[in-house]
Amino acid sequence: MEQALTELKERLGKLTDLRRTQALLAWDMTVFMPPGGAPTRAAQLGTMEEITHAHVVDDRFGELFVELEPYAASLPHDSDDAALVRVAQRDWNRARRVPAALAVEFAKAAAESYEMWVKAREASDFAAFRPSLERIVDLRRQYIECFAPYDDAYDVLLEDYEPGMRTSEIREVFSVLTPALRALVAEHASEEDDPFMRGPFPIAAQEALSRELVEAFGASWDQFRLDKTVHPFEVALGLGDIRLTSRYAEDDLLSLFTAMHEAGHGIYEWGVSPTLERTPLCEGVSATLHESQSRLWENVVGRSLPFWRWFYPRLQETFPGPLGDVPLDDFHRAANRVRRSFIRVDADETSYGLHIILRFELEQELISGRLSVADLPDAWNTRFEELMGISVPNDALGVLQDAHWSDGGFGYFPTYLLGTVLSVQIWKRMRDVIPDLEEQIERGEFGPLHAWLRENIYALGRKFTPAETIERAVGGPIDPQPYLAYLGEKLETRAPA
Amino acid sequence: MEQALTELKERLGKLTDLRRTQALLAWDMTVFMPPGGAPTRAAQLGTMEEITHAHVVDDRFGELFVELEPYAASLPHDSDDAALVRVAQRDWNRARRVPAALAVEFAKAAAESYEMWVKAREASDFAAFRPSLERIVDLRRQYIECFAPYDDAYDVLLEDYEPGMRTSEIREVFSVLTPALRALVAEHASEEDDPFMRGPFPIAAQEALSRELVEAFGASWDQFRLDKTVHPFEVALGLGDIRLTSRYAEDDLLSLFTAMHEAGHGIYEWGVSPTLERTPLCEGVSATLHESQSRLWENVVGRSLPFWRWFYPRLQETFPGPLGDVPLDDFHRAANRVRRSFIRVDADETSYGLHIILRFELEQELISGRLSVADLPDAWNTRFEELMGISVPNDALGVLQDAHWSDGGFGYFPTYLLGTVLSVQIWKRMRDVIPDLEEQIERGEFGPLHAWLRENIYALGRKFTPAETIERAVGGPIDPQPYLAYLGEKLETRAPA
Repeated sequence: MEQALTELKERLGKLTDLRRTQALLAWDMTVFMPPGGAPTRAAQLGTMEEITHAHVVDDRFGELFVELEPYAASLPHDSDDAALVRVAQRDWNRARRVPAALAVEFAKAAAESYEMWVKAREASDFAAFRPSLERIVDLRRQYIECFAPYDDAYDVLLEDYEPGMRTSEIREVFSVLTPALRALVAEHASEEDDPFMRGPFPIAAQEALSRELVEAFGASWDQFRLDKTVHPFEVALGLGDIRLTSRYAEDDLLSLFTAMHEAGHGIYEWGVSPTLERTPLCEGVSATLHESQSRLWENVVGRSLPFWRWFYPRLQETFPGPLGDVPLDDFHRAANRVRRSFIRVDADETSYGLHIILRFELEQELISGRLSVADLPDAWNTRFEELMGISVPNDALGVLQDAHWSDGGFGYFPTYLLGTVLSVQIWKRMRDVIPDLEEQIERGEFGPLHAWLRENIYALGRKFTPAETIERAVGGPIDPQPYLAYLGEKLETRAPA
Repeated sequence: MEQALTELKERLGKLTDLRRTQALLAWDMTVFMPPGGAPTRAAQLGTMEEITHAHVVDDRFGELFVELEPYAASLPHDSDDAALVRVAQRDWNRARRVPAALAVEFAKAAAESYEMWVKAREASDFAAFRPSLERIVDLRRQYIECFAPYDDAYDVLLEDYEPGMRTSEIREVFSVLTPALRALVAEHASEEDDPFMRGPFPIAAQEALSRELVEAFGASWDQFRLDKTVHPFEVALGLGDIRLTSRYAEDDLLSLFTAMHEAGHGIYEWGVSPTLERTPLCEGVSATLHESQSRLWENVVGRSLPFWRWFYPRLQETFPGPLGDVPLDDFHRAANRVRRSFIRVDADETSYGLHIILRFELEQELISGRLSVADLPDAWNTRFEELMGISVPNDALGVLQDAHWSDGGFGYFPTYLLGTVLSVQIWKRMRDVIPDLEEQIERGEFGPLHAWLRENIYALGRKFTPAETIERAVGGPIDPQPYLAYLGEKLETRAPA
């Protein structure tokens, strides 16, 4: 038994090494690789995927699980070893449902489809992307069939991002959010111009401020990096090797919010218990939990008045030209202004949810076959106007704006909004346990906040299910009410425009 | 047969992917990884080595070679397919002589020994490094025994860097060089100070000039990178993904010569025929050929008077403080001054060879057992004084200065000097085929030089043996006389100090 456990850990350690090596290939590709490296990098990623997949589905795991099940069952539910056997067995069973040929075909199709999407978006031409997307949807349906029987086809896709979550649960949460967010947008949307928000903000200074913020949130540069890329992301190559990426434009300050967002992902993965290092538990437990952290630090903290009471003087000192004469309240209002806008990633906190709800609905219909790929742009444009009240001028500002569908990431979008909702539940809990939380933030002190999150969420990694992790952190399931209350309060109490 | 060839290429393609992935892990480790990534990176490198090794020695290759031998024999010697089967079979046979356990133990010991060496060198304390080096020497002897019978134990180690080269051949070349280089150093060594060579030279400007030089030699930034590291090196992650590294100090201009040196390695690997991409032939053929290119561009080109006639005005314009009033001849003399010095990597073109000869002699004695590790520092100090005429003050400036022994790289050192010798043979050949070569360089034109090297050396990759490659390039074997003539001429004709 002890020998089996050692072998299991050794095999899972190697799998972790392989996955992190793949992550380095991908990180380097978008951050530092010269363009001429593209063909060989594609081959390297393909070979590594094949090798990793073979290790993931190895029959030997099955024998080890048989041997280890009684031992795992004898341990407390929260023991590291019990969790390791439980989670690894679930991962293995799931991976083995998918034939290698389908996995490889999908990986290849996704890479090709992504390339097609990049070109189609540039040309704002959905027709050029349509055949690729049809192939991707078809391959996703084949994937879903590997998991038959199921209640809802979309559940199968969700399981990859949010294990245990059901489509029906999300529908319920979103059915509360949809009318409420529409009403808030209708009431508060503004077309007021904030010219001081267009800079100029020299990029080197933005980068320096981004580093100050990441550091203030608790990161340490001997274990973190922050680099430039086109589509920002975070990746952990080890508990002591966390890579954040961001992007910069001289005419806005989005980079600061991006840095806080990616820092949230990074300090989550950085905070996993060292006892789980080099195991499949050494990660954030789900996309929703991950997004709850990125959006907590970016929005709930990073767009709050206490936060800017602390950081705004620093910002004014750095950019005296555009901001020297702008009062804090004006800046804070501009950073929180509700706008009807076309692009999700630029959306404010309030209208953001409507962008997600649209995608969630369309994804379900595409996957079920109720909506054909050919009819997708029309459906997008009609629903978007219903939800947001403005009319989509072209595909680039509409159905082609996100990368997620091009590589088959159906099921991810709803976790953005679930994470946003959860971030406010967590915030509410923290205000109870840290009574002077806002005063701390006003002084630029994030230590106790970070420590609470680390102890109650980050350290757990993937030991528990997402639902168990949420229950432990906030004492109940995902609940949209605190989020709506938070938005309402923020929008009511801020100084009038 | 055709099927076997396809399978062979597919397997070798995957092997190339794995090796390049390992190279990325290593490159990132020394260039961008935060220090906190060290433990997980070691694990990743270990796992990848194990997986790559298993692929390298796979039995299936043996079956494929049996099937393909008649086909390969039916092709002309210089066909790509014939070369692929021939070289892959030689690599496979060689790799299979070494038991996996020994290979893994050696990789682990080398990593640990390298760490010990870093600390020992910092403390200038050979005793702290001695046990590690003893283990490494012992493991290298076990490795050698895997290839018994052999003429000379050192031949086995050489084979990894310079396939086909015999220790006796190197001894012969070095026996000519030793007295000649000692005499040149005795005659020309100087203690003259060149204060203008100590700058200050701001680092950003050195980096910009380094990029100009790499570009002038023909590299294209959409397929190259140049980054900072502690111990500069070059690595090819694909024919279109060449990574150079360099280092900078404000009080010298060594970075420019390092950039030219690494550019030489880089454009060699960049120039391999695209028909050999993603095969084991897509590399420089040997360490000597590689060094011949780095040292050709760094020294034969980069320390020549024609080169500085072109580039010195640019240097003066960039660093007017230290260099504005220094005549070209004075600068060129300083950049070529012969000095008796302790550190190999800082040595001038003439005394450099003596540093190598010392190491070559000591390596053979360590491997044969005629010299014990315990007696190594004394042997170093005695021989060094005989060769260079100065007395070694401590281990950091003596036996501990190089990383090569710490990770078991015995057999590499002689290729530095062989490559230097060869670089002058190649240069001589090029002066014959490009009559106005020096005039071109004086105009900053490197295109025809680069094109000749690409066609006659770079494009071949590993298709032929090193000896065949040298024969094709210069019409005969390695010959020390052109190198000695070149040094003599350079030292005689330069303006007196």
